[in-house]
Amino acid sequence: MPPIVSIVGKSDTGKTTLLERLVPELRARGYRIGTIKHNVHGFDIDHKGKDSWRHKQAGAHTLAISSPTKVALVKDVETEETLDSLASKYFQDVDIILTEGYKKEDKPKIEVFRSQVHETPLCKGDEHLVALVSDTSLDPSVPRFELRDIKGLADFLEKRFLVTF
Amino acid sequence: MPPIVSIVGKSDTGKTTLLERLVPELRARGYRIGTIKHNVHGFDIDHKGKDSWRHKQAGAHTLAISSPTKVALVKDVETEETLDSLASKYFQDVDIILTEGYKKEDKPKIEVFRSQVHETPLCKGDEHLVALVSDTSLDPSVPRFELRDIKGLADFLEKRFLVTF
Repeated sequence: MPPIVSIVGKSDTGKTTLLERLVPELRARGYRIGTIKHNVHGFDIDHKGKDSWRHKQAGAHTLAISSPTKVALVKDVETEETLDSLASKYFQDVDIILTEGYKKEDKPKIEVFRSQVHETPLCKGDEHLVALVSDTSLDPSVPRFELRDIKGLADFLEKRFLVTF
Repeated sequence: MPPIVSIVGKSDTGKTTLLERLVPELRARGYRIGTIKHNVHGFDIDHKGKDSWRHKQAGAHTLAISSPTKVALVKDVETEETLDSLASKYFQDVDIILTEGYKKEDKPKIEVFRSQVHETPLCKGDEHLVALVSDTSLDPSVPRFELRDIKGLADFLEKRFLVTF
């Protein structure tokens, strides 16, 4: 199973932006990246009116769209999937899984915290916190990276989760 | 593995419309339906600018979005997945898989043919043709259903692919 690391933080701290920069950096180092976006309130995917959208709308439990380069899947679930379940079903062929959200699961977490946006961080005292991406130092027990230090963060992830001897 | 039946036909014959009617009919009979849309030229799914879209755009090989009721997945593939591969990976929990397209695979096929739109059908002489949904009879060796006879077609699918004794 690939390692799973969660990028967490309060709203508007820049989690997606961090992932947007981190994914190509790790990819350029030769790794295959999986990402999981947590969506508590449900989501829309696919475009209204398209054939695939109409299949799902008609009541298909599971819908796939398959092309020579890509597969998409939309599947109903009865209970929310855990990260381990998602990883074992869909991510066997990646080197690392980065999640956006999932602060309540017990995976290693990197918190994005900007003191300009929030007064307090989300993961204070969380034993699963492994690094902080922030403009300010709050927890001296974990490494801290500046918001723009993508290379530093990628080095950290590589050493801690990807390089095996 | 669930049975796989392909709904095929030339363009604009109403394959999606047929599926849109067939899926709720089978679902009302207690079956869990999977559908697969074949897309030869690639496809767009997800909405530009959304967090999940940005993950994939940044170069994630595999992206999942997970909510309490639904999971979506977008995954790069190196070669196109076969129907059997898709079925074994993603459709173990459905009763039947209906595909839109896949005329070249060797699954049982139901052709939608409308003489008002095309002069000749797609599957003439195809040994995998099991039924014709058409306004006209062309191949007397397979059952034919009127375009609006969804119950008749569902009965046929149920007897042939779903009811096991």
